[in-house]
Amino acid sequence: MSQSRVILENLSPELNAGRYFIKRVVGDTLSVAIDLYGDGHDVVNGRLLYRHEKQRKWRSVAMTHRGNDRWGGAFALESPGTYEYKVEGWVDYGLNWQHEIERKIEGGQTVAVELLDGVQYLDYLQKKVAKGHKKQIKEWVALFADESRYAEATAVAVSEELHALFQAHPERRFVVEYPARKVFVDRKKAEFSTWYELFPRSASSVEGQHGSFKDVEKLLPRIAEFGFDTLYMPPIHPIGRVHRKGKNNSVTAEPGEPGSCWGVGAKEGGHTALLPELGTLKDFKRLIKKALEHDIEIAMDIAFQCAPDHPWVKAHPEWFRWRPDGSVQYAENPPKKYQDILPIYFETPDWKNLWQALTDVVLYWMEQGVRVFRIDNPHTKPYRFWEHLIAECKKKDPGVIFLSEAFTRPAVMHQLAKVGFSQSYSYYTWRNTKAELIAYLTELTQGPGRDYFRANFWPNTPDILPWALQSGQEPVFLTRLFMAGTLNSNYGLYGPVYEFMVHEAVPGKEEYWDSEKYEIRQWDWEKRNKITHVMTRMNQARKDNPALQAMHNLQFCTVENENILAWYKSDSAADNHLLMVVNIDPYYTQSGWVQTPLSAIGIAPGQEFTVHDLISGNSYLWNQEWNYVELNPFALPFHLFRIEKP
Amino acid sequence: MSQSRVILENLSPELNAGRYFIKRVVGDTLSVAIDLYGDGHDVVNGRLLYRHEKQRKWRSVAMTHRGNDRWGGAFALESPGTYEYKVEGWVDYGLNWQHEIERKIEGGQTVAVELLDGVQYLDYLQKKVAKGHKKQIKEWVALFADESRYAEATAVAVSEELHALFQAHPERRFVVEYPARKVFVDRKKAEFSTWYELFPRSASSVEGQHGSFKDVEKLLPRIAEFGFDTLYMPPIHPIGRVHRKGKNNSVTAEPGEPGSCWGVGAKEGGHTALLPELGTLKDFKRLIKKALEHDIEIAMDIAFQCAPDHPWVKAHPEWFRWRPDGSVQYAENPPKKYQDILPIYFETPDWKNLWQALTDVVLYWMEQGVRVFRIDNPHTKPYRFWEHLIAECKKKDPGVIFLSEAFTRPAVMHQLAKVGFSQSYSYYTWRNTKAELIAYLTELTQGPGRDYFRANFWPNTPDILPWALQSGQEPVFLTRLFMAGTLNSNYGLYGPVYEFMVHEAVPGKEEYWDSEKYEIRQWDWEKRNKITHVMTRMNQARKDNPALQAMHNLQFCTVENENILAWYKSDSAADNHLLMVVNIDPYYTQSGWVQTPLSAIGIAPGQEFTVHDLISGNSYLWNQEWNYVELNPFALPFHLFRIEKP
Repeated sequence: MSQSRVILENLSPELNAGRYFIKRVVGDTLSVAIDLYGDGHDVVNGRLLYRHEKQRKWRSVAMTHRGNDRWGGAFALESPGTYEYKVEGWVDYGLNWQHEIERKIEGGQTVAVELLDGVQYLDYLQKKVAKGHKKQIKEWVALFADESRYAEATAVAVSEELHALFQAHPERRFVVEYPARKVFVDRKKAEFSTWYELFPRSASSVEGQHGSFKDVEKLLPRIAEFGFDTLYMPPIHPIGRVHRKGKNNSVTAEPGEPGSCWGVGAKEGGHTALLPELGTLKDFKRLIKKALEHDIEIAMDIAFQCAPDHPWVKAHPEWFRWRPDGSVQYAENPPKKYQDILPIYFETPDWKNLWQALTDVVLYWMEQGVRVFRIDNPHTKPYRFWEHLIAECKKKDPGVIFLSEAFTRPAVMHQLAKVGFSQSYSYYTWRNTKAELIAYLTELTQGPGRDYFRANFWPNTPDILPWALQSGQEPVFLTRLFMAGTLNSNYGLYGPVYEFMVHEAVPGKEEYWDSEKYEIRQWDWEKRNKITHVMTRMNQARKDNPALQAMHNLQFCTVENENILAWYKSDSAADNHLLMVVNIDPYYTQSGWVQTPLSAIGIAPGQEFTVHDLISGNSYLWNQEWNYVELNPFALPFHLFRIEKP
Repeated sequence: MSQSRVILENLSPELNAGRYFIKRVVGDTLSVAIDLYGDGHDVVNGRLLYRHEKQRKWRSVAMTHRGNDRWGGAFALESPGTYEYKVEGWVDYGLNWQHEIERKIEGGQTVAVELLDGVQYLDYLQKKVAKGHKKQIKEWVALFADESRYAEATAVAVSEELHALFQAHPERRFVVEYPARKVFVDRKKAEFSTWYELFPRSASSVEGQHGSFKDVEKLLPRIAEFGFDTLYMPPIHPIGRVHRKGKNNSVTAEPGEPGSCWGVGAKEGGHTALLPELGTLKDFKRLIKKALEHDIEIAMDIAFQCAPDHPWVKAHPEWFRWRPDGSVQYAENPPKKYQDILPIYFETPDWKNLWQALTDVVLYWMEQGVRVFRIDNPHTKPYRFWEHLIAECKKKDPGVIFLSEAFTRPAVMHQLAKVGFSQSYSYYTWRNTKAELIAYLTELTQGPGRDYFRANFWPNTPDILPWALQSGQEPVFLTRLFMAGTLNSNYGLYGPVYEFMVHEAVPGKEEYWDSEKYEIRQWDWEKRNKITHVMTRMNQARKDNPALQAMHNLQFCTVENENILAWYKSDSAADNHLLMVVNIDPYYTQSGWVQTPLSAIGIAPGQEFTVHDLISGNSYLWNQEWNYVELNPFALPFHLFRIEKP
């Protein structure tokens, strides 16, 4: 039993009734909406309260009625870390009295008794207002009781001044509170990042030589020139020798073969050691530093599994599963076997120490200066473990970023995002047709995941050479790259093979032939081509245009051609307006009329405006809503138009 | 930190994260769905647990995977009252072991070690199974270790028998529980009811005489003949004399005028007294008994407001608001004034006693035999009050039914349904066009309210003579009645004025002229006409056809004519198939082709079948999916077809 008369429900945004935090980035404004209403006709009111985890005191902003009992309010997210937000609602007795008296006066009624009734609300105000107002209110109390000054009294009763005082000092009896929810505020990079992946073992320009951190250092100017801000290297730890994989995933390695770098751990050390061929910790820290000079961050691969000769297997046998024949359990997904990898036994009775040891691995690399982690196969480890690990790491540095490498079922990928991953690999890799792309992007930008699931678009990875790229057609490489970087604000490339259009696959599979996963490759690090030209221009456009730095500002535009996809993006300040048009047919020139969202941009019908292509450099003068485009796949199969408002 | 590896989320049905109960009726099956999945590839499993509030022990049924990590289960709701239901999920170690060994055998692997590994799961089973099985399992343990009987052992390992034992006796380590939710099970009447409203003051057949319960008793055969099962009378309590309203809502009553029956209370008593002109408590209880003999229940009006001469005003002045001039506050909605009614002051410091007194009113009438209450203006009283009152009354009798008379904003109407009202007046009264009806019925049957908001369709009420009926056209009266009773399972009529097509309104308003709210009217209780004929036939069809006794089994059928609305309903056993077709144009004959849902009914294309019109008695032979209909508003503007499967 409670006397509260206000209902607060359907808070938005909210995740699993508050079980998980939602996500935003620094500089965002968090817009909160809620159903707020009472019984009867009384005036209700509400406010939004919020505080950063480092603040004790709540700050508040007024909420306003947006129609149909839905109220809204917003506040700025200024610092990384966790904010809490909650809503209070109440019947507003002062405003209600004023509203009633207004309606009665409008209806021609005499309100002498109502004025006397109002004295109780003035008395309340009297106690709450600043000193300057106290005298004023005292005078009003006398005025309300003075029949000879009725006209003056009614004028005060309905005045804006009194309204503002009631609004500022509500008598919040029987306040209802909607419980606090959390939003985690990442640094901007969580929403806007441009990834380049390479195997440091292939970084040398000397034929046959194992690449090193020093070699990678030499590639930084090239990667910076192409416009990438994140350099991700697969695991850089010692690689196991027991059951080491050979070229093309052969079950035995020939002498001298380097093995899969995901077979982590050998006599040289485990997850906190470095592969001697790559260099020393000093070399690695120097690479981090040099990269930062190019505005590039080093992203590290965390693969929580062990080679059979990983030091933990002897030091902590209880962290692994042992079979009835005394052998240790290797990874399997029947009928597939991964003899070079032992899964970690998360259900071990020693699980608390295990979790701590794994968390310590990430904390160790954070201490060395790494702030971006790509987590290998997170979906084969418990969700509660990741929730713990990520929370611990964010305590040390709220700017740490975790990319979830889970290509699996939607529920599993979403759960990993809920427990804290900052970004997630996505199905973009396999979304090719116009209908597929529109459906998927609509789900990502408007579906329930929009508050917590940040997709990262990868046209390829060392594990995936998608069918679409296996043709080796340049227009496909160009459009898959272009769409990754302009449909979405987070994207990445498994670089050298993409630039050079490597497309030889293991027959019948979406896997690279002669994959760098199992061998050292040699690349021509001096080469430039159409693809590197496009990525350079596009990545520059991404840096220059805030509209390309956000995820949910996507609006598809009608084009009556199934081979042409067009979409519009603008920034939150509505200063930056981009129109992207792609021909996804790699064989033929396609043309069509694109419906341009003139009213969203703020252009009057018939007004002339310029569209400037940030890839080709060409400009066009348009003056209509529907505009003709024609795209030749062998020239440039897309436009990246910046719309210049007249 | 927790070792649980299973995720349970997105339970359906669920209301406000379990804050409120959902609703069903006795005989329903509750289908529960939930996302259930683990990390990695391990086999997971789950079960649905449930119990009636009078049971201590939980019963359980297995849940099964329905695709995309969504699991389902169901149980029968056999008794009125509250059931709890919850879900458990776990990694199923036994089934997982069996699944892995199956895949390995299929992949051609030798599984000798895996068989040894399986002994631990057999050991677990050994402890759990019934005596008869223990010996069998002991033999299997020996078998698994016997290399010479490998083929036999693998056959047992993958056997259905072992699968069934694992399924029946899961080793539920690290079980995750989704918290219990509640479903309130009403008696069937909450979902299927046919209401007739009359003012007992007008029940006399003697000119100028105040009607009485005895007069109402004489009308029971007529109401039963028309097929109604609920007889609802506006308040039957003493009517205040102070500021009594006169004819047509005049602010003063002439001597002898009866006043509005919603001005409850006078010197003769308050909410637990009866208006002497209507009769004694004995008469009222006799009416209840006689009505039941006709399968009719008496529904009582609860209007929690007081006339100025209600005994409570003197006995409990603190339950009312007093103005600074010493007068008591009457009801207002500026500029409207209701001087004959005092609102109850729910924020009184004596609120606990007030709530109890009001609850006691309903409990008192329940003791006299009333089980159906129509609550007047519930939206002007606190939600928490209703939640308390309804819960207290349901404790005494889970079969008690409350109809919410709130014609107000959607959020408010829905909140009242959430706090416990069994049925709600609805916007049907103002939904006239085909598009409006389809949109509204789709919201009611498929929107979030479907688990708690049971609409009751009223074409008119004493407060509402909708514009559509003010024309007085017979086809409109016929189709509004027909749609109320066949689109929805709960409907009601403000009877005599509807049968006799009374349609004179207060100019410019949707209110009856010479309303019975303020005066005694005389009706010809012997008269029969086309409307009474149609309601008789339709209400009989409602009793005979289970498809018309449920709310959410509605499926609209395509007809390419904006004036023809067609829909299909069938019962949960799929034995009863109805097709309704209405011409909503009151002026012209309309025709069109109705798409008949043959596959839902179970009729093969080209097969001949009969449709039998339960109103006109005509039958037609159809043999196609699209069938021609032609409806003349001046004959019968609808079909109520029962489809006879060949």
